[in-house]
Amino acid sequence: DFFETQKPIKINLDPYAEEYDMNHKRRGVALILNHVNFESMNTRKGSVKDCLDLKTSLGKLGFDVRIYTDPTVKSITMALQSTAAEDHTDADCLIVVAMSHGESGLLHSHDSLYPVDALWAPFTADRCSSLAGKPKLFFIQACRGTRLDKGVKIIHETDSKRTTYSIPAYADIMVAYSTYDGFYSWRNPNAGSWFIQALCEELDLHGRSRDLLSLMTFVNRRVAIEYQSYVPENERYHAKKQIPSVVSMLTRLVYFPDKRVPDDLDESKGSLEESKKRSPIGMSRTNSTNKAPEELITEIIWLKLLEKAPELGYVDKGGLHSLILLDYEMREAKEKQKETGVADLSR
Amino acid sequence: DFFETQKPIKINLDPYAEEYDMNHKRRGVALILNHVNFESMNTRKGSVKDCLDLKTSLGKLGFDVRIYTDPTVKSITMALQSTAAEDHTDADCLIVVAMSHGESGLLHSHDSLYPVDALWAPFTADRCSSLAGKPKLFFIQACRGTRLDKGVKIIHETDSKRTTYSIPAYADIMVAYSTYDGFYSWRNPNAGSWFIQALCEELDLHGRSRDLLSLMTFVNRRVAIEYQSYVPENERYHAKKQIPSVVSMLTRLVYFPDKRVPDDLDESKGSLEESKKRSPIGMSRTNSTNKAPEELITEIIWLKLLEKAPELGYVDKGGLHSLILLDYEMREAKEKQKETGVADLSR
Repeated sequence: DFFETQKPIKINLDPYAEEYDMNHKRRGVALILNHVNFESMNTRKGSVKDCLDLKTSLGKLGFDVRIYTDPTVKSITMALQSTAAEDHTDADCLIVVAMSHGESGLLHSHDSLYPVDALWAPFTADRCSSLAGKPKLFFIQACRGTRLDKGVKIIHETDSKRTTYSIPAYADIMVAYSTYDGFYSWRNPNAGSWFIQALCEELDLHGRSRDLLSLMTFVNRRVAIEYQSYVPENERYHAKKQIPSVVSMLTRLVYFPDKRVPDDLDESKGSLEESKKRSPIGMSRTNSTNKAPEELITEIIWLKLLEKAPELGYVDKGGLHSLILLDYEMREAKEKQKETGVADLSR
Repeated sequence: DFFETQKPIKINLDPYAEEYDMNHKRRGVALILNHVNFESMNTRKGSVKDCLDLKTSLGKLGFDVRIYTDPTVKSITMALQSTAAEDHTDADCLIVVAMSHGESGLLHSHDSLYPVDALWAPFTADRCSSLAGKPKLFFIQACRGTRLDKGVKIIHETDSKRTTYSIPAYADIMVAYSTYDGFYSWRNPNAGSWFIQALCEELDLHGRSRDLLSLMTFVNRRVAIEYQSYVPENERYHAKKQIPSVVSMLTRLVYFPDKRVPDDLDESKGSLEESKKRSPIGMSRTNSTNKAPEELITEIIWLKLLEKAPELGYVDKGGLHSLILLDYEMREAKEKQKETGVADLSR
């Protein structure tokens, strides 16, 4: 009898439930692997801002956020294994965010490369039973190769009982990559990476109201539409686009309802009201007031005509050491202060 | 001015719309590449049933379904390129389904292997402008390697204006793989493949009411929970699970609202009513009455105890020539006729 070869895990969730149970005592752990400095690659400026914004956004959703700055492969392995060894019985889910330089299928740690799937290997249902049947969510901000997306231009005109069953080990995992496999991933040294910033904005706006895959669809839209690299002096990197890629093995819808107790309802309502008041899209989280250097003035005029503001950005790839890259965010420029920045060159 | 290097595409969709426009004159083309026979691999029994069920389910959603049986690489290339060359201006979207033997990153045609991404390469926004900004949906029923998922056992107790912008070329694509990268994909020679059967059931049940990624989440749940291989004579292939993997670069929610004209509303309502009457899960589309051969009687008794019905299944991998594999579908056996079948061995 093959059912005897493995000890079953007890889960109090109807196998046919449409939504994951997000009403455990704890929301769960959110590990953030924040790589800023490397032994032999350039600094990921902007990642500290990404990390702080994530901490805020995930904290608001009730996550126990644990930040690892510049971890080595050894400390990443230990962090993942010790987290997987914890008892997650009273937690809703798990989040792991890795922000680093990357290549196709690989991520850079402080000291060396490791395969990206090492992030979720310790948490599959067969290896971490207290997370079996619960959503395990991975967010990867990193390059996945050296391809560049030149984009496609669009014109828009406004007129218009007791059961025993079994689940696959890899079920209930979602991996949201900042970019499609093989492609560059873009980061602004002042404002943070396109993907993480869009993720934080959507978590803040819709984290309590929409299911996660709908929310990630809106992250895709935000990155796809609002961002573009701006490097007129280097045609290879100029005017490039980015599309995140969400890989879902989720078997139910993920919602993050409020975890507060009833007497906190007013406060919770307040924050929802506040959230509704925010512009639904195109609004930047950053209030940086860095002014554009004089040498960029022609580009700024050009972008002003298009009602877009330029921002400096790096490609999230260790191999590019001496590029100054710009990206911009589409927004209503009249209402916004233009934000620019110059990337410090490392090494 | 880099905006002059490429001719813009005109799209009458608000860049901030949450949903894709699914109100064009036509729903769009659905290509089905149905591989049953191969020059040098075993026959994919059950694929004809998958194909017919898909034709029905996609036809109901308004798709212009075009079936290619046992195409060669050359005819696949021609079919994709001629479809990409068509004018999709008045169509909502595109679907391509490929059902074949496969390996990681590769699919088998009638005569040879080809990379799976050849399916969507002709339809990226930069290469097929009349589908730019529209959802391009790919469904892949095939193995992606030789790994096997042994599953995790669970106990459930019942108490319980005018704007110009640019989009990335790879935006608006979804690729739904029947299995996680590196793993086997299972098919029942009588009832069809686990993935395609689950997909058709969910399209029939929720195709008009839920957004596509929610629907694909339910497909994942159905495959993950309802199916398991049953090969007691071969431990390596016995009691294995499967989890589909959905890769989304979609930037908006996909819905398939009814395309019929107002005076057909009654008919449409009828089919929705009919759809609602169906059991929401665990109901088989097949009414095959193949009886179990005598030699399987012990297994049938065993499954009866668990209120499950056995079904024979093949792994969707060309390399396995002489295995008899069984899978089963979890269902309320009291209400259902047990369905079994014996796989004919090819070659």
